Amino acid sequence: MCDVCGCQVPDKEKTSQTVDVHESLLAANIAQAKENRHHFEQMGAIAINLISSPGSGKTTLLEHTIRKLRDELIIAVIEGDIETERDAVRIRAQGAPAVQITTGGACHLDARLVHKGLHQLQHESESEKFDIIFIENVGNLVCPATFDLGEHERIVMISVPEGSDKPAKYPKAFTTSQKFLITKTDLLPYFDFSIDEAKEEALKLNQGLKIMELSATTGNGFEDWLTYLRSLKSR
Amino acid sequence: MCDVCGCQVPDKEKTSQTVDVHESLLAANIAQAKENRHHFEQMGAIAINLISSPGSGKTTLLEHTIRKLRDELIIAVIEGDIETERDAVRIRAQGAPAVQITTGGACHLDARLVHKGLHQLQHESESEKFDIIFIENVGNLVCPATFDLGEHERIVMISVPEGSDKPAKYPKAFTTSQKFLITKTDLLPYFDFSIDEAKEEALKLNQGLKIMELSATTGNGFEDWLTYLRSLKSR
Repeated sequence: MCDVCGCQVPDKEKTSQTVDVHESLLAANIAQAKENRHHFEQMGAIAINLISSPGSGKTTLLEHTIRKLRDELIIAVIEGDIETERDAVRIRAQGAPAVQITTGGACHLDARLVHKGLHQLQHESESEKFDIIFIENVGNLVCPATFDLGEHERIVMISVPEGSDKPAKYPKAFTTSQKFLITKTDLLPYFDFSIDEAKEEALKLNQGLKIMELSATTGNGFEDWLTYLRSLKSR
Repeated sequence: MCDVCGCQVPDKEKTSQTVDVHESLLAANIAQAKENRHHFEQMGAIAINLISSPGSGKTTLLEHTIRKLRDELIIAVIEGDIETERDAVRIRAQGAPAVQITTGGACHLDARLVHKGLHQLQHESESEKFDIIFIENVGNLVCPATFDLGEHERIVMISVPEGSDKPAKYPKAFTTSQKFLITKTDLLPYFDFSIDEAKEEALKLNQGLKIMELSATTGNGFEDWLTYLRSLKSR
Protein backbone atom coordinates (compact mmCIF):
# COMPACT_ATOMS: atom_id res chain seq x y z
CA MET A 1 0.00 0.00 0.00
CA CYS A 2 0.92 3.64 -0.42
CA ASP A 3 2.89 5.20 2.45
CA VAL A 4 0.18 7.58 3.53
CA CYS A 5 -2.92 6.52 1.57
CA GLY A 6 -4.47 3.07 1.45
CA CYS A 7 -3.88 2.60 -2.29
CA GLN A 8 -1.89 -0.30 -3.68
CA VAL A 9 1.69 0.75 -4.44
CA PRO A 10 3.70 -2.37 -5.13
CA ASP A 11 7.08 -0.73 -5.58
CA LYS A 12 7.39 1.36 -2.43
CA GLU A 13 9.78 0.61 0.38
CA LYS A 14 8.11 0.69 3.76
CA THR A 15 8.64 -0.20 7.36
CA SER A 16 6.91 -3.21 8.83
CA GLN A 17 5.20 -0.84 11.27
CA THR A 18 3.52 1.06 8.39
CA VAL A 19 2.35 -2.17 6.79
CA ASP A 20 0.95 -3.45 10.10
CA VAL A 21 -1.02 -0.27 10.78
CA HIS A 22 -2.49 -0.16 7.27
CA GLU A 23 -3.35 -3.85 7.21
CA SER A 24 -5.14 -3.67 10.50
CA LEU A 25 -7.09 -0.59 9.36
CA LEU A 26 -8.16 -2.29 6.13
CA ALA A 27 -9.05 -5.48 8.02
CA ALA A 28 -11.23 -3.41 10.37
CA ASN A 29 -12.91 -1.86 7.32
CA ILE A 30 -13.66 -5.29 5.83
CA ALA A 31 -15.21 -6.47 9.10
CA GLN A 32 -17.36 -3.33 9.35
CA ALA A 33 -18.40 -3.67 5.68
CA LYS A 34 -19.61 -7.22 6.35
CA GLU A 35 -21.71 -5.92 9.23
CA ASN A 36 -23.09 -3.12 7.03
CA ARG A 37 -24.11 -5.65 4.36
CA HIS A 38 -26.07 -7.60 6.94
CA HIS A 39 -27.59 -4.34 8.15
CA PHE A 40 -28.71 -3.36 4.62
CA GLU A 41 -30.28 -6.78 4.18
CA GLN A 42 -32.22 -6.47 7.43
CA MET A 43 -33.63 -3.23 6.04
CA GLY A 44 -34.69 -5.15 2.90
CA ALA A 45 -32.34 -3.08 0.76
CA ILE A 46 -29.87 -3.59 -2.06
CA ALA A 47 -27.00 -1.12 -1.50
CA ILE A 48 -25.29 0.52 -4.48
CA ASN A 49 -21.94 2.34 -4.13
CA LEU A 50 -21.52 5.03 -6.82
CA ILE A 51 -17.90 5.95 -7.61
CA SER A 52 -16.76 8.72 -9.98
CA SER A 53 -14.78 11.93 -10.30
CA PRO A 54 -16.29 15.22 -9.10
CA GLY A 55 -18.83 16.49 -11.60
CA SER A 56 -19.57 13.21 -13.41
CA GLY A 57 -23.24 13.64 -12.58
CA LYS A 58 -23.81 11.30 -9.61
CA THR A 59 -26.28 13.59 -7.82
CA THR A 60 -28.06 14.52 -11.06
CA LEU A 61 -28.42 10.81 -11.92
CA LEU A 62 -29.95 10.17 -8.49
CA GLU A 63 -32.33 13.14 -8.75
CA HIS A 64 -33.70 11.87 -12.09
CA THR A 65 -33.81 8.26 -10.87
CA ILE A 66 -35.81 9.11 -7.75
CA ARG A 67 -38.24 11.25 -9.74
CA LYS A 68 -38.92 8.33 -12.10
CA LEU A 69 -39.10 5.56 -9.49
CA ARG A 70 -40.46 7.15 -6.33
CA ASP A 71 -43.93 5.64 -6.82
CA GLU A 72 -42.53 2.14 -7.41
CA LEU A 73 -39.51 1.72 -5.15
CA ILE A 74 -38.52 2.96 -1.71
CA ILE A 75 -35.18 4.65 -2.30
CA ALA A 76 -32.84 6.35 0.16
CA VAL A 77 -29.43 7.97 -0.30
CA ILE A 78 -26.34 8.17 1.89
CA GLU A 79 -24.40 11.17 0.57
CA GLY A 80 -20.64 11.35 1.03
CA ASP A 81 -18.82 14.66 0.66
CA ILE A 82 -15.72 16.25 2.09
CA GLU A 83 -17.69 19.36 3.03
CA THR A 84 -21.23 20.78 2.57
CA GLU A 85 -24.77 19.38 2.92
CA ARG A 86 -25.77 20.40 -0.60
CA ASP A 87 -26.21 16.99 -2.19
CA ALA A 88 -28.51 15.67 0.54
CA VAL A 89 -30.63 18.83 0.18
CA ARG A 90 -30.95 18.15 -3.58
CA ILE A 91 -32.02 14.53 -2.96
CA ARG A 92 -34.59 15.43 -0.29
CA ALA A 93 -36.13 17.91 -2.73
CA GLN A 94 -37.01 14.87 -4.89
CA GLY A 95 -38.90 13.29 -2.01
CA ALA A 96 -36.41 10.64 -0.88
CA PRO A 97 -34.76 10.45 2.53
CA ALA A 98 -31.08 11.38 2.43
CA VAL A 99 -28.38 11.62 5.06
CA GLN A 100 -25.23 13.61 4.47
CA ILE A 101 -21.89 12.31 5.70
CA THR A 102 -19.10 14.87 5.53
CA THR A 103 -15.69 13.27 5.83
CA GLY A 104 -14.03 16.47 7.09
CA GLY A 105 -11.15 16.11 4.66
CA ALA A 106 -10.91 12.41 3.79
CA CYS A 107 -10.95 11.43 0.13
CA HIS A 108 -13.33 8.46 0.41
CA LEU A 109 -16.10 6.95 2.49
CA ASP A 110 -15.20 4.00 4.69
CA ALA A 111 -17.44 1.33 6.20
CA ARG A 112 -17.43 2.99 9.62
CA LEU A 113 -18.78 6.28 8.22
CA VAL A 114 -21.46 4.43 6.22
CA HIS A 115 -22.46 2.54 9.36
CA LYS A 116 -23.03 5.87 11.11
CA GLY A 117 -25.03 7.02 8.07
CA LEU A 118 -27.19 3.90 8.24
CA HIS A 119 -28.19 4.58 11.83
CA GLN A 120 -28.87 8.21 11.01
CA LEU A 121 -31.10 7.09 8.12
CA GLN A 122 -33.09 4.77 10.39
CA HIS A 123 -33.43 7.55 12.92
CA GLU A 124 -34.59 10.22 10.44
CA SER A 125 -36.67 8.23 7.97
CA GLU A 126 -40.35 7.34 8.25
CA SER A 127 -39.78 4.00 6.54
CA GLU A 128 -37.99 1.07 8.17
CA LYS A 129 -37.71 -0.88 4.92
CA PHE A 130 -36.07 0.21 1.68
CA ASP A 131 -35.69 -1.32 -1.78
CA ILE A 132 -32.51 0.49 -2.80
CA ILE A 133 -30.04 2.51 -0.74
CA PHE A 134 -27.60 4.46 -2.89
CA ILE A 135 -24.28 5.48 -1.39
CA GLU A 136 -22.88 8.46 -3.29
CA ASN A 137 -19.15 8.30 -2.60
CA VAL A 138 -16.80 11.31 -2.42
CA GLY A 139 -15.96 12.57 -5.92
CA ASN A 140 -12.70 10.70 -6.54
CA LEU A 141 -11.92 7.98 -9.06
CA VAL A 142 -9.02 6.54 -7.05
CA CYS A 143 -9.25 6.04 -3.28
CA PRO A 144 -12.92 4.95 -2.94
CA ALA A 145 -12.06 1.82 -4.97
CA THR A 146 -10.03 0.44 -2.03
CA PHE A 147 -12.87 0.55 0.52
CA ASP A 148 -15.71 -1.97 0.68
CA LEU A 149 -18.69 -0.17 2.24
CA GLY A 150 -20.87 -3.27 2.48
CA GLU A 151 -22.56 -2.55 -0.86
CA HIS A 152 -24.09 -5.25 -3.06
CA GLU A 153 -23.31 -3.45 -6.32
CA ARG A 154 -20.46 -1.07 -7.11
CA ILE A 155 -20.98 1.22 -10.09
CA VAL A 156 -18.20 3.31 -11.63
CA MET A 157 -19.19 6.32 -13.75
CA ILE A 158 -17.30 8.32 -16.39
CA SER A 159 -18.95 11.32 -18.03
CA VAL A 160 -18.32 12.16 -21.68
CA PRO A 161 -16.39 15.42 -20.94
CA GLU A 162 -13.80 13.42 -18.95
CA GLY A 163 -12.55 11.45 -21.96
CA SER A 164 -12.68 7.82 -23.05
CA ASP A 165 -9.05 7.15 -22.05
CA LYS A 166 -9.88 7.14 -18.34
CA PRO A 167 -10.46 3.41 -17.58
CA ALA A 168 -6.83 2.45 -18.30
CA LYS A 169 -5.57 5.38 -16.24
CA TYR A 170 -7.75 4.64 -13.19
CA PRO A 171 -7.99 0.83 -13.31
CA LYS A 172 -8.96 -0.14 -9.77
CA ALA A 173 -12.39 1.48 -9.88
CA PHE A 174 -13.06 -0.69 -12.95
CA THR A 175 -11.62 -3.96 -11.67
CA THR A 176 -13.68 -3.75 -8.46
CA SER A 177 -17.03 -2.65 -9.98
CA GLN A 178 -19.90 -4.71 -11.38
CA LYS A 179 -21.24 -1.95 -13.60
CA PHE A 180 -19.80 0.91 -15.67
CA LEU A 181 -22.09 3.84 -16.50
CA ILE A 182 -21.11 6.28 -19.25
CA THR A 183 -23.00 9.49 -18.46
CA LYS A 184 -23.78 12.80 -20.21
CA THR A 185 -24.00 11.03 -23.61
CA ASP A 186 -25.97 14.03 -24.94
CA LEU A 187 -22.55 15.77 -25.08
CA LEU A 188 -20.98 13.23 -27.47
CA PRO A 189 -21.23 15.62 -30.46
CA TYR A 190 -19.07 18.19 -28.64
CA PHE A 191 -16.29 15.95 -27.32
CA ASP A 192 -13.67 13.64 -28.73
CA PHE A 193 -15.06 10.71 -26.71
CA SER A 194 -15.17 7.21 -28.20
CA ILE A 195 -17.76 4.93 -26.63
CA ASP A 196 -15.98 1.97 -28.26
CA GLU A 197 -12.61 2.91 -26.73
CA ALA A 198 -14.10 3.38 -23.26
CA LYS A 199 -15.92 0.02 -23.43
CA GLU A 200 -12.92 -1.84 -24.82
CA GLU A 201 -10.55 -0.45 -22.17
CA ALA A 202 -12.98 -1.18 -19.35
CA LEU A 203 -13.62 -4.76 -20.52
CA LYS A 204 -9.87 -5.37 -20.83
CA LEU A 205 -9.66 -4.61 -17.10
CA ASN A 206 -12.80 -6.51 -16.10
CA GLN A 207 -14.45 -8.94 -18.51
CA GLY A 208 -17.58 -9.28 -16.37
CA LEU A 209 -18.34 -5.55 -16.27
CA LYS A 210 -21.84 -4.61 -17.43
CA ILE A 211 -21.78 -1.34 -19.37
CA MET A 212 -24.62 1.16 -19.86
CA GLU A 213 -24.75 4.57 -21.53
CA LEU A 214 -27.22 7.28 -20.65
CA SER A 215 -28.06 10.95 -20.58
CA ALA A 216 -30.10 12.23 -17.64
CA THR A 217 -30.80 15.39 -19.69
CA THR A 218 -32.32 13.82 -22.83
CA GLY A 219 -33.42 10.55 -21.20
CA ASN A 220 -31.53 8.45 -23.77
CA GLY A 221 -30.64 5.09 -22.24
CA PHE A 222 -32.46 5.95 -19.04
CA GLU A 223 -35.15 3.29 -19.42
CA ASP A 224 -32.48 0.52 -19.40
CA TRP A 225 -31.06 1.97 -16.20
CA LEU A 226 -34.51 1.98 -14.56
CA THR A 227 -35.16 -1.59 -15.72
CA TYR A 228 -31.91 -2.67 -14.08
CA LEU A 229 -32.86 -0.95 -10.81
CA ARG A 230 -36.34 -2.51 -10.85
CA SER A 231 -34.76 -5.94 -11.37
CA LEU A 232 -32.77 -5.54 -8.16
CA LYS A 233 -35.97 -5.59 -6.09
CA SER A 234 -36.84 -9.15 -7.10
CA ARG A 235 -33.30 -10.41 -6.68
CA MET B 1 -5.40 12.57 9.60
CA CYS B 2 -7.58 9.95 7.99
CA ASP B 3 -7.00 6.37 9.17
CA VAL B 4 -5.63 5.10 5.91
CA CYS B 5 -5.08 8.19 3.75
CA GLY B 6 -3.07 11.28 4.63
CA CYS B 7 -6.05 13.64 4.52
CA GLN B 8 -7.10 15.76 7.48
CA VAL B 9 -9.99 14.16 9.39
CA PRO B 10 -10.40 16.00 12.65
CA ASP B 11 -13.15 13.82 14.12
CA LYS B 12 -11.68 10.33 13.81
CA GLU B 13 -10.52 8.25 16.71
CA LYS B 14 -7.07 6.81 16.19
CA THR B 15 -4.25 5.11 17.98
CA SER B 16 -1.10 7.03 18.79
CA GLN B 17 0.77 4.50 16.62
CA THR B 18 -1.25 5.53 13.52
CA VAL B 19 -0.66 9.21 14.19
CA ASP B 20 3.08 8.65 14.66
CA VAL B 21 3.46 6.74 11.39
CA HIS B 22 1.51 9.33 9.39
CA GLU B 23 3.30 12.28 10.95
CA SER B 24 6.70 10.83 10.24
CA LEU B 25 5.71 10.09 6.62
CA LEU B 26 4.44 13.63 6.08
CA ALA B 27 7.53 15.07 7.77
CA ALA B 28 9.71 13.01 5.40
CA ASN B 29 7.69 14.38 2.47
CA ILE B 30 8.22 17.98 3.60
CA ALA B 31 11.98 17.43 3.90
CA GLN B 32 12.14 15.86 0.42
CA ALA B 33 10.01 18.69 -1.02
CA LYS B 34 12.48 21.23 0.35
CA GLU B 35 15.29 19.37 -1.37
CA ASN B 36 13.31 19.24 -4.63
CA ARG B 37 12.74 23.01 -4.50
CA HIS B 38 16.48 23.58 -4.22
CA HIS B 39 16.99 21.10 -7.06
CA PHE B 40 14.51 22.95 -9.33
CA GLU B 41 16.26 26.23 -8.56
CA GLN B 42 19.66 24.79 -9.47
CA MET B 43 18.14 23.83 -12.82
CA GLY B 44 17.01 27.48 -13.21
CA ALA B 45 13.37 26.42 -13.16
CA ILE B 46 10.12 27.56 -11.63
CA ALA B 47 8.11 24.41 -10.80
CA ILE B 48 4.32 24.40 -11.18
CA ASN B 49 2.15 21.68 -9.62
CA LEU B 50 -1.14 21.23 -11.54
CA ILE B 51 -3.99 19.71 -9.51
CA SER B 52 -7.44 18.76 -10.85
CA SER B 53 -9.92 15.94 -11.36
CA PRO B 54 -9.43 13.46 -14.21
CA GLY B 55 -10.49 15.01 -17.50
CA SER B 56 -10.27 18.70 -16.51
CA GLY B 57 -7.85 19.27 -19.37
CA LYS B 58 -4.41 19.35 -17.71
CA THR B 59 -2.61 17.57 -20.56
CA THR B 60 -4.48 19.53 -23.23
CA LEU B 61 -3.56 22.80 -21.48
CA LEU B 62 0.10 21.76 -21.47
CA GLU B 63 0.04 20.72 -25.15
CA HIS B 64 -1.31 24.12 -26.20
CA THR B 65 1.03 25.97 -23.81
CA ILE B 66 4.14 24.25 -25.13
CA ARG B 67 3.09 24.83 -28.75
CA LYS B 68 2.76 28.57 -28.04
CA LEU B 69 5.88 29.04 -25.91
CA ARG B 70 8.41 26.52 -27.17
CA ASP B 71 10.43 29.17 -29.02
CA GLU B 72 10.56 31.48 -25.99
CA LEU B 73 10.85 29.28 -22.90
CA ILE B 74 12.49 25.96 -22.09
CA ILE B 75 9.65 23.87 -20.70
CA ALA B 76 9.66 20.31 -19.38
CA VAL B 77 6.91 18.19 -17.85
CA ILE B 78 6.87 15.57 -15.09
CA GLU B 79 3.72 13.54 -15.73
CA GLY B 80 2.03 11.71 -12.86
CA ASP B 81 -0.44 8.91 -13.55
CA ILE B 82 -1.57 5.78 -11.79
CA GLU B 83 -1.00 3.78 -14.95
CA THR B 84 -0.02 4.36 -18.64
CA GLU B 85 2.65 6.43 -20.42
CA ARG B 86 0.10 8.23 -22.59
CA ASP B 87 0.38 11.76 -21.24
CA ALA B 88 4.18 11.89 -21.60
CA VAL B 89 3.84 10.69 -25.19
CA ARG B 90 1.39 13.54 -25.91
CA ILE B 91 3.77 16.12 -24.39
CA ARG B 92 6.83 14.83 -26.27
CA ALA B 93 4.85 15.12 -29.51
CA GLN B 94 4.80 18.92 -28.85
CA GLY B 95 8.59 18.99 -28.68
CA ALA B 96 9.13 19.25 -24.91
CA PRO B 97 10.93 16.71 -22.74
CA ALA B 98 8.58 14.74 -20.52
CA VAL B 99 9.07 11.96 -18.00
CA GLN B 100 6.23 9.76 -16.93
CA ILE B 101 5.89 8.69 -13.30
CA THR B 102 3.34 5.94 -12.75
CA THR B 103 2.37 5.62 -9.11
CA GLY B 104 1.27 1.99 -9.48
CA GLY B 105 -1.97 2.65 -7.64
CA ALA B 106 -1.38 5.67 -5.44
CA CYS B 107 -3.78 8.57 -5.73
CA HIS B 108 -1.21 11.40 -5.68
CA LEU B 109 2.40 12.25 -6.40
CA ASP B 110 4.71 12.67 -3.43
CA ALA B 111 8.03 14.49 -3.17
CA ARG B 112 10.02 11.24 -3.39
CA LEU B 113 8.43 10.29 -6.71
CA VAL B 114 9.00 13.78 -8.10
CA HIS B 115 12.64 13.60 -7.02
CA LYS B 116 13.03 10.40 -9.05
CA GLY B 117 11.35 12.16 -11.98
CA LEU B 118 13.77 15.07 -11.70
CA HIS B 119 16.78 12.80 -12.03
CA GLN B 120 15.16 10.98 -14.94
CA LEU B 121 14.53 14.34 -16.63
CA GLN B 122 18.18 15.37 -16.24
CA HIS B 123 19.27 12.01 -17.60
CA GLU B 124 16.99 12.05 -20.65
CA SER B 125 16.93 15.72 -21.62
CA GLU B 126 19.42 17.56 -23.81
CA SER B 127 19.07 20.73 -21.76
CA GLU B 128 20.45 21.15 -18.25
CA LYS B 129 18.57 24.38 -17.61
CA PHE B 130 14.81 24.95 -17.78
CA ASP B 131 12.54 27.96 -17.38
CA ILE B 132 9.42 26.11 -16.27
CA ILE B 133 8.94 22.53 -15.13
CA PHE B 134 5.29 21.53 -14.94
CA ILE B 135 4.29 18.68 -12.65
CA GLU B 136 0.99 17.20 -13.82
CA ASN B 137 -0.39 15.50 -10.73
CA VAL B 138 -2.60 12.39 -10.70
CA GLY B 139 -6.19 13.28 -11.62
CA ASN B 140 -7.69 13.76 -8.16
CA LEU B 141 -9.00 16.91 -6.51
CA VAL B 142 -8.46 15.63 -2.96
CA CYS B 143 -5.26 13.80 -1.96
CA PRO B 144 -2.68 15.73 -4.03
CA ALA B 145 -3.51 18.85 -1.97
CA THR B 146 -1.83 17.29 1.10
CA PHE B 147 1.58 16.75 -0.53
CA ASP B 148 4.15 19.50 -1.15
CA LEU B 149 6.23 18.39 -4.13
CA GLY B 150 8.72 21.25 -3.89
CA GLU B 151 6.79 23.38 -6.39
CA HIS B 152 6.92 27.18 -6.45
CA GLU B 153 3.36 27.59 -7.69
CA ARG B 154 0.37 25.32 -7.14
CA ILE B 155 -2.49 25.69 -9.59
CA VAL B 156 -5.92 24.11 -9.09
CA MET B 157 -8.13 23.64 -12.15
CA ILE B 158 -11.89 23.10 -12.53
CA SER B 159 -13.41 22.58 -15.97
CA VAL B 160 -16.83 23.96 -16.85
CA PRO B 161 -18.50 20.50 -17.15
CA GLU B 162 -17.60 19.73 -13.51
CA GLY B 163 -19.81 22.48 -12.06
CA SER B 164 -19.22 25.75 -10.24
CA ASP B 165 -20.12 24.27 -6.83
CA LYS B 166 -16.85 22.35 -6.59
CA PRO B 167 -14.57 24.74 -4.62
CA ALA B 168 -16.66 24.49 -1.44
CA LYS B 169 -16.85 20.70 -1.76
CA TYR B 170 -13.09 20.19 -2.27
CA PRO B 171 -11.64 23.05 -0.19
CA LYS B 172 -8.06 21.97 0.48
CA ALA B 173 -6.94 22.17 -3.14
CA PHE B 174 -8.13 25.80 -3.06
CA THR B 175 -6.70 26.80 0.31
CA THR B 176 -3.23 25.49 -0.66
CA SER B 177 -3.05 26.88 -4.23
CA GLN B 178 -1.81 30.25 -5.49
CA LYS B 179 -3.83 30.13 -8.70
CA PHE B 180 -7.24 28.83 -9.80
CA LEU B 181 -7.78 28.11 -13.50
CA ILE B 182 -11.30 27.68 -14.86
CA THR B 183 -10.91 25.64 -18.06
CA LYS B 184 -13.09 24.66 -21.05
CA THR B 185 -14.89 28.02 -20.95
CA ASP B 186 -16.01 27.45 -24.57
CA LEU B 187 -18.57 25.03 -23.02
CA LEU B 188 -20.25 27.70 -20.86
CA PRO B 189 -23.32 27.91 -23.17
CA TYR B 190 -24.03 24.18 -22.66
CA PHE B 191 -23.64 23.93 -18.87
CA ASP B 192 -25.22 25.44 -15.81
CA PHE B 193 -21.85 26.81 -14.64
CA SER B 194 -21.62 30.21 -12.96
CA ILE B 195 -18.19 31.84 -13.21
CA ASP B 196 -19.26 34.24 -10.45
CA GLU B 197 -20.23 31.40 -8.09
CA ALA B 198 -16.96 29.53 -8.71
CA LYS B 199 -14.89 32.68 -8.11
CA GLU B 200 -16.82 33.72 -5.03
CA GLU B 201 -16.58 30.24 -3.42
CA ALA B 202 -12.88 29.98 -4.19
CA LEU B 203 -12.09 33.45 -2.80
CA LYS B 204 -14.08 32.66 0.35
CA LEU B 205 -11.62 29.80 0.93
CA ASN B 206 -8.50 31.71 -0.09
CA GLN B 207 -8.55 35.49 -0.44
CA GLY B 208 -5.16 35.61 -2.13
CA LEU B 209 -6.06 33.19 -4.93
CA LYS B 210 -5.46 34.55 -8.45
CA ILE B 211 -8.20 33.37 -10.82
CA MET B 212 -8.01 32.97 -14.60
CA GLU B 213 -10.50 31.63 -17.15
CA LEU B 214 -9.53 30.10 -20.47
CA SER B 215 -10.42 27.79 -23.29
CA ALA B 216 -7.59 25.88 -24.95
CA THR B 217 -9.96 25.14 -27.85
CA THR B 218 -10.97 28.69 -28.79
CA GLY B 219 -7.93 30.42 -27.28
CA ASN B 220 -10.09 32.77 -25.17
CA GLY B 221 -8.14 33.88 -22.12
CA PHE B 222 -5.05 32.01 -23.29
CA GLU B 223 -2.95 35.13 -23.82
CA ASP B 224 -3.30 36.08 -20.12
CA TRP B 225 -2.13 32.59 -19.16
CA LEU B 226 0.93 32.87 -21.41
CA THR B 227 1.71 36.35 -20.04
CA TYR B 228 1.66 34.92 -16.53
CA LEU B 229 4.02 32.09 -17.53
CA ARG B 230 6.40 34.51 -19.26
CA SER B 231 6.43 36.64 -16.10
CA LEU B 232 7.72 33.68 -14.06
CA LYS B 233 10.99 33.68 -16.00
CA SER B 234 12.01 37.11 -14.76
CA ARG B 235 10.90 36.46 -11.21
